Amino acid sequence: MTSDDRMIFRSAEIISVGTELLVGQIVDTNARFLSAQLAEIGLSTYRHVVVGDNLERLDKAMRRAVSENDLVITTGGLGPTEDDITDVVTARLIGVPLVSNQEIKSRLDDRGRTTPPNYPLIPEGSLFFHNDTGTAPGSLTFFTFEGQQKAILMLPGPPSEMEPMFLQYVRPVLEKHSMAKFIHRYVRLTGIGESRSEKMIRDLIERQGEVTIAPYASPGEVVFRVSQRLEHGDEDKTDATVEAIIERVGEFVFEVGPRNLAEVVYDLLNVREETCAFAESCTAGLLSSSIAAIPGASKVLRGGFVVYNDEMKRSLLGVPVDILMREGAVSAACVRVMAENCRLRTGADYAVAISGFAGPDGGTADNPVGTVYIALARCSGVFAKRFFFRGGRQRILKQSVAAALNLLRKGMIDG
Amino acid sequence: MTSDDRMIFRSAEIISVGTELLVGQIVDTNARFLSAQLAEIGLSTYRHVVVGDNLERLDKAMRRAVSENDLVITTGGLGPTEDDITDVVTARLIGVPLVSNQEIKSRLDDRGRTTPPNYPLIPEGSLFFHNDTGTAPGSLTFFTFEGQQKAILMLPGPPSEMEPMFLQYVRPVLEKHSMAKFIHRYVRLTGIGESRSEKMIRDLIERQGEVTIAPYASPGEVVFRVSQRLEHGDEDKTDATVEAIIERVGEFVFEVGPRNLAEVVYDLLNVREETCAFAESCTAGLLSSSIAAIPGASKVLRGGFVVYNDEMKRSLLGVPVDILMREGAVSAACVRVMAENCRLRTGADYAVAISGFAGPDGGTADNPVGTVYIALARCSGVFAKRFFFRGGRQRILKQSVAAALNLLRKGMIDG
Repeated sequence: MTSDDRMIFRSAEIISVGTELLVGQIVDTNARFLSAQLAEIGLSTYRHVVVGDNLERLDKAMRRAVSENDLVITTGGLGPTEDDITDVVTARLIGVPLVSNQEIKSRLDDRGRTTPPNYPLIPEGSLFFHNDTGTAPGSLTFFTFEGQQKAILMLPGPPSEMEPMFLQYVRPVLEKHSMAKFIHRYVRLTGIGESRSEKMIRDLIERQGEVTIAPYASPGEVVFRVSQRLEHGDEDKTDATVEAIIERVGEFVFEVGPRNLAEVVYDLLNVREETCAFAESCTAGLLSSSIAAIPGASKVLRGGFVVYNDEMKRSLLGVPVDILMREGAVSAACVRVMAENCRLRTGADYAVAISGFAGPDGGTADNPVGTVYIALARCSGVFAKRFFFRGGRQRILKQSVAAALNLLRKGMIDG
Repeated sequence: MTSDDRMIFRSAEIISVGTELLVGQIVDTNARFLSAQLAEIGLSTYRHVVVGDNLERLDKAMRRAVSENDLVITTGGLGPTEDDITDVVTARLIGVPLVSNQEIKSRLDDRGRTTPPNYPLIPEGSLFFHNDTGTAPGSLTFFTFEGQQKAILMLPGPPSEMEPMFLQYVRPVLEKHSMAKFIHRYVRLTGIGESRSEKMIRDLIERQGEVTIAPYASPGEVVFRVSQRLEHGDEDKTDATVEAIIERVGEFVFEVGPRNLAEVVYDLLNVREETCAFAESCTAGLLSSSIAAIPGASKVLRGGFVVYNDEMKRSLLGVPVDILMREGAVSAACVRVMAENCRLRTGADYAVAISGFAGPDGGTADNPVGTVYIALARCSGVFAKRFFFRGGRQRILKQSVAAALNLLRKGMIDG
């Protein structure tokens, strides 16, 4: 019933427990986080399952999962209330009692967390993992099921507790139980749609073998995931595929790796010791906050303006009335002035301005909903570009932010 | 094999198909969307399952799902490539061929969408649903499985295609097959944590019967979901429970209904025909863009400033150097000036200013990471409040935005 360091996990199933997931109240981000983590350490995820807070259904799901996988990972259902049944179901399935653990208790006491008298409990004989941002501990229990060695890993449900626990305590343990290794590489594109970019690498997709290519698109970004399963002695062949993709769509590639567009822009600015500022109309701070999301943003971000109506464009950024009257606020002339004056007023090396029609209402015959003008101002001058994005309001705003970041990125690289 | 209007769906299982979900590349938002939709029309979701693009595993998952549920809903795997296998697996399970459909083809032609010659295909005899934002149609097929009537609903994977298709075409059909109806009501709180708010309504949670209460928390918001299953003739008893919750935690409740905090603030401003503006340091536009996310935001949002360093606070918003030197940028004095001058420079009725330490670095002994000052300026004066938020950078920023919106909301209500 104790840890067995020699057991190799070949496949894992993730069971997310919680009625709030089944009625659509929240999105299950844990399954995604865990799958990505498992992939990195070479464990293959066989299935995700979501079940409600129901003893019988959870028991059924757990038995199935255990019969088909070496490792079953649960998230949620570890709290102190009656609703929280994951530990009860697991202990019953394994055939051990739930017990209190003095080390866990003292650690919670030290942190000043008060807990009910008979809480938390873990299956007897399990490895346990401290919860430094909550109360419910994690646990990993090895046991024999129908003659085969199995393991159940229980993790808390709130991502703010589960993620740090997994990264700090659980992952190093799981790594010891992994045999193969998956290599996943990500080629990231912007400024091109999914279908067009897929067409451009169709020959590679059709010829894929050991190294596979999988496309995925979100607003403003297309990602090709290049993957290979490596066992002892296998050669990493992903390089050639990544090169071949870049050969075909290189002009749209902004990153081969994990960074999103804002992170790439941040790193470029940081290395060059330069700064940026933003003048936003329709995106109203979304662009600026995409940089501020990155720790250390104050090294590169000075500030900026949100100018959501004509009067603000005039008073805060000095856009002349005749430009607003003749060309309109959604025009190349308007964003040029916005960018230039934003740069002057903030003293940033680069200023980017956005103005567009995000819909659902608004727009003109010449500039329908989806039309967005973006300008980049730098010491060598200012230039503006017209974009047209499809989709609903959120999608148009996200695509605008991606296009603006990309214009800034290119402005830095092209000098 | 054709539609059977008398069939009642008692439970549904949702199968999301795609290896990109299993390797953690994307989050499965479809399952959440569909569960919420099904709950609204009184269909209970029994389970979510995610499987990769693998014939054998998908077949197994489908057979299980069909054997335990009346209705199985798949998302994804309907595209034209070899990877896309959901339609193949479904047709084989039902025992019908996949066929081309002239009406679907003509509609795609009319929209100028070119498709491969033998695409799209649907199971013979199924109801189909047009895809107005992509190419793969949806389909609903009724069939007999082990002597029982079953149905499989196949939907495309991209949310931008699946959601509009479901809302416009699929939901009205499913409504005809639902017997019970679930009532879900949402009581939304801000300014209080999950554990404290749960303690305050513990007696109600312990006494719950027909009407159930389920809590859920995200940064800056706690939601209590109050639910009841109604069949013919049952009385809606959720009112009394909602009232009882409000009696206990009313001071933190900002909404009984579907609106988030930004939408509540938007509606308040809109009704009063008043406007707002924002001066943001650490949140850098996140607050402003939370209002701009709402269609029609230009009616209430004028604009604002992002002032990410001391120099910007001074030059763009006139924060005196001696405040920055003596009190620091993260202080009540600083946000007061930021809010007041933001209001004067934008002409908005209300201006909200935020300055804080979002971490991971920064902070002082008196004001550690997590300390955030927020000020509200209006014609009757300006006041500031100190907050302390726990968690990582993103969490602190989101909680700051919620606190700022709530301060604005209260400022309007309290007059």
